Amino acid sequence: MTDEVVTAAMLAIGDELLSGRTKDKNIGHLADILTAIGIDLEEVRIVPDEEDRIVEALNALRERYEYVFTSGGIGPTHDDITADAVAKAFDVPCEHDAAAMKLMGDNYAARGMEFTESRQRMARMPRGSAHIANPVSTAPGFHIGNVYVMAGVPSVFQAMLDNVIPTLRVGKKLLSRSVNCPFGEGAIAVPLRNIQAIHPDTIIGSYPKYENGKFSTELVIRAREEEKLLAAESAVKEMVADIATQSAQ
Amino acid sequence: MTDEVVTAAMLAIGDELLSGRTKDKNIGHLADILTAIGIDLEEVRIVPDEEDRIVEALNALRERYEYVFTSGGIGPTHDDITADAVAKAFDVPCEHDAAAMKLMGDNYAARGMEFTESRQRMARMPRGSAHIANPVSTAPGFHIGNVYVMAGVPSVFQAMLDNVIPTLRVGKKLLSRSVNCPFGEGAIAVPLRNIQAIHPDTIIGSYPKYENGKFSTELVIRAREEEKLLAAESAVKEMVADIATQSAQ
Repeated sequence: MTDEVVTAAMLAIGDELLSGRTKDKNIGHLADILTAIGIDLEEVRIVPDEEDRIVEALNALRERYEYVFTSGGIGPTHDDITADAVAKAFDVPCEHDAAAMKLMGDNYAARGMEFTESRQRMARMPRGSAHIANPVSTAPGFHIGNVYVMAGVPSVFQAMLDNVIPTLRVGKKLLSRSVNCPFGEGAIAVPLRNIQAIHPDTIIGSYPKYENGKFSTELVIRAREEEKLLAAESAVKEMVADIATQSAQ
Repeated sequence: MTDEVVTAAMLAIGDELLSGRTKDKNIGHLADILTAIGIDLEEVRIVPDEEDRIVEALNALRERYEYVFTSGGIGPTHDDITADAVAKAFDVPCEHDAAAMKLMGDNYAARGMEFTESRQRMARMPRGSAHIANPVSTAPGFHIGNVYVMAGVPSVFQAMLDNVIPTLRVGKKLLSRSVNCPFGEGAIAVPLRNIQAIHPDTIIGSYPKYENGKFSTELVIRAREEEKLLAAESAVKEMVADIATQSAQ
């Protein structure tokens, strides 16, 4: 059973996410992709651009989950400290990677631009890292151990993630079905709890929505076995129909 | 100096945030509001609807930060376990709050609806909690110690937060100025690092954007003293103008 579940965490790095200046788009994207391929995202943390905080969070997460994905802090400016922090977490030196220097040097040369010391900073990574290709802007992300370090700019994060995904071990997909329920949670809580009890190999979530002064609910059934998924879905649909009949009487 | 800074963390609770089904809107909203009133949001965690995980994260955060705000898991259904988890973290019983029972009972009576056992579940809170009023749908959030427990539905979260904000101790606001820079980070990293070194009481962040195949950068200067903010802002603007002149030559 254990092999069926592959777990992951995300560490989003950046003062701008905590100040509200930037609204994160990478967490939701990663969540969507991992769910689709059969990896369970089990925890997310957002921390500021501070080395100790990044090291602490990264060490907590990489020990606990099979994969950790980070976003942000790998550019050339003084506030980009993710590579150093990851190296510190792994207790290895952070150094200019020869292959990244070559790749980026060639790219800047081809564009007639100087490969300055700050640009070279983007070629720094923890010793022992492998590249994550960056088709958008060349400077690679990297992975070391079970940690995948990617850019914060969403288009670059997504492009890097596309290159990482095919290399990951995946578990059995958590399948899901969604049932719209026109009633608030108070009206369905008891029968829904019973359905959950009768279908223990499913996870039934109830998500209230509040629109135009009225609550409705989206009921989401999740399971790794299709048969169990469909059985619970039927029970949920029947419950919604029963309540509709009762309330029409 | 210590008194000038008031810190906070957020704990967003819910499987749906980790599966990608729901894209969180509360983190960004809380970040905006706290920044505006002078509280520094220093960490965010997202955890699933699992009691142990909520307890562990909550205890880590409430010890470290002056305030902790939670979202999600306070409805009437079986997957709403936040009140129990918070009670467990504080090692107090989770019980039906008499004032909440009265408030909600009256409200359901006025609407001609039955105050069922599941609806009564929403009146449960850790012993010793105080209410957070819910002008949208009556069932109150609560706070205990330095932890503020609010709904996950964004309109309800926001309404509850509006009631919490005036009661919080605030620090000196972190003021900010933003300078648009038409160059990528590689072009500005060295002079920007120098400006940061010369203006140590400011925090200068560099946020790359990638649009239409070209990088530009937003430079954000933050400081608690307006004078220091404006001095660093001038230096950043001058830097951008200098690079523009050089690249035009």
